[in-house]
Amino acid sequence: MTTNDFGGVYCAAATPFTQDRSPDHAAFAQHCHALIEEGCDGIALLGTTGEANSLGLKERQELLERVIEAGIAPSRLMPGTAQTSVADTVALTRHAVEAGVKAVVLLPPFYYKCVSDEGLFRAYADIIDQVTDDRLRVILYHIPQISGVAISQALITRLQAAYPGIVIGIKDSSGDLDNMRRTIAECPDCAVMAGADPLMLPLLQSGGAGCITASSNLVAADLRIVFDKWNDPTHQAEVESAQARINAWRELTNAYVQLPTVKTMLARRRGLDSWTRVRPPFIELSDEERASVLTRMEQLEHEDKA
Amino acid sequence: MTTNDFGGVYCAAATPFTQDRSPDHAAFAQHCHALIEEGCDGIALLGTTGEANSLGLKERQELLERVIEAGIAPSRLMPGTAQTSVADTVALTRHAVEAGVKAVVLLPPFYYKCVSDEGLFRAYADIIDQVTDDRLRVILYHIPQISGVAISQALITRLQAAYPGIVIGIKDSSGDLDNMRRTIAECPDCAVMAGADPLMLPLLQSGGAGCITASSNLVAADLRIVFDKWNDPTHQAEVESAQARINAWRELTNAYVQLPTVKTMLARRRGLDSWTRVRPPFIELSDEERASVLTRMEQLEHEDKA
Repeated sequence: MTTNDFGGVYCAAATPFTQDRSPDHAAFAQHCHALIEEGCDGIALLGTTGEANSLGLKERQELLERVIEAGIAPSRLMPGTAQTSVADTVALTRHAVEAGVKAVVLLPPFYYKCVSDEGLFRAYADIIDQVTDDRLRVILYHIPQISGVAISQALITRLQAAYPGIVIGIKDSSGDLDNMRRTIAECPDCAVMAGADPLMLPLLQSGGAGCITASSNLVAADLRIVFDKWNDPTHQAEVESAQARINAWRELTNAYVQLPTVKTMLARRRGLDSWTRVRPPFIELSDEERASVLTRMEQLEHEDKA
Repeated sequence: MTTNDFGGVYCAAATPFTQDRSPDHAAFAQHCHALIEEGCDGIALLGTTGEANSLGLKERQELLERVIEAGIAPSRLMPGTAQTSVADTVALTRHAVEAGVKAVVLLPPFYYKCVSDEGLFRAYADIIDQVTDDRLRVILYHIPQISGVAISQALITRLQAAYPGIVIGIKDSSGDLDNMRRTIAECPDCAVMAGADPLMLPLLQSGGAGCITASSNLVAADLRIVFDKWNDPTHQAEVESAQARINAWRELTNAYVQLPTVKTMLARRRGLDSWTRVRPPFIELSDEERASVLTRMEQLEHEDKA
């Protein structure tokens, strides 16, 4: 377990779009309220699943402002605020900190590849120094299969030494449990959050701090059970069946391209077409894919009730 | 040869920084004037070599405005104007078109990976449709080893069919001559520009349209010779020795990480420290690396004169 108290169940929330593909603020607020009711500690909006990198800088700021206006406490929010440049990342991060968010989730600068840890350290240091706000809390974001830029344990250690109490955790979406365990072992002050739902239970058993995941858009209640009861021997069967349900749902989200599949499932769950829409470079599921996903979703709902 | 008349020697210009790492506008304008004197048809500023993705949106716009104010004709400028989102790409592109640039160089949306050609088509189509300006000319940018997102011949064909006279060429920085030849064969209306200097002569011999390269910051005069005389049998020896000099200089730029190496060499060439500075995630060359590069640079200058 980390020496800082950060942890819990966080949803990497998807972003619904209206017919003209603007963010549907009403549908998003409704979703965030529902996620908290379903058991999420908070919402990691504007991440990979949130299509943040398909939104403009102003749209990103507006999405955060509007969801706070709709009554979601900023202390429950952890937006992604990274851009490729320090300058724009500072602007988004400062805006989020001033809005009172719990933390920001920060990708490394992700355009250039094969860069050094020294270069990544300087980028994060520049961002933190230029935001100059004691309220800033940073969750690093390790998702090398998409960003193309890995965050090493050496880099985490160096950042936490330079910015204690500010750099507090990492979202590890590599899907590599061994890497998460190495981080827990080598970076005891770093809260390690699983980016992939099937790893929630094994990660907690290894000393991890919780999750920030895409499937939690759909299975928040089961993640809540796993998080709250994993360490209680009297609830072992309940925890294991919750994790099994999580895994089954997660498997379905990977039937086709994950993002439009999750959003197709959300459209059914929340009863709103805004959820089916994606921005390029993503495309919606085909009618056949959609039908297949919804049929399987019905089966899963039936099994969950059984 | 392509059916459109776009082509020539374009420099993927580096960006100098002052001591506080702001763009050094005076040094940049001086460099652009020198490049044109040295033989460049124009400047592809704000690309990968220009550290565009380490500059904020406002800084990118200001760099373009200031170099035009300093007397570089906008008709010689081809800025990179892509961001990960359509919204910000449209803003940068519209700004550049209104400034009168010759063309813009457009990366595909580069955050998400494994996306479909359909999704990439929609992203480019949205950008072009939303800019809604007949003066727009687009050079696609294929650099999969950095962007992680390739531009296929099928995508080029589809974009050129949908936007004839607007999508006019591609900067192919893959280093893969076979891929460039496939583009020339399959996309006869597409001007294929080499992104790697050693391929200038073989690409021109294959029907390519010229180059947009990093080494042209240093060897523009030799690229001019190759471009102007490659097809004239009476100048074969001159062309081949120009290409050999280009290759030797290019080899030196790859002695260490390319970008800080090119900038170290530019600092000597232009006599200004602003060129040595880079923004994170890049770091400057070490003193030893710098000394080694400058020694070899002196040798190359001596050989060039011999």
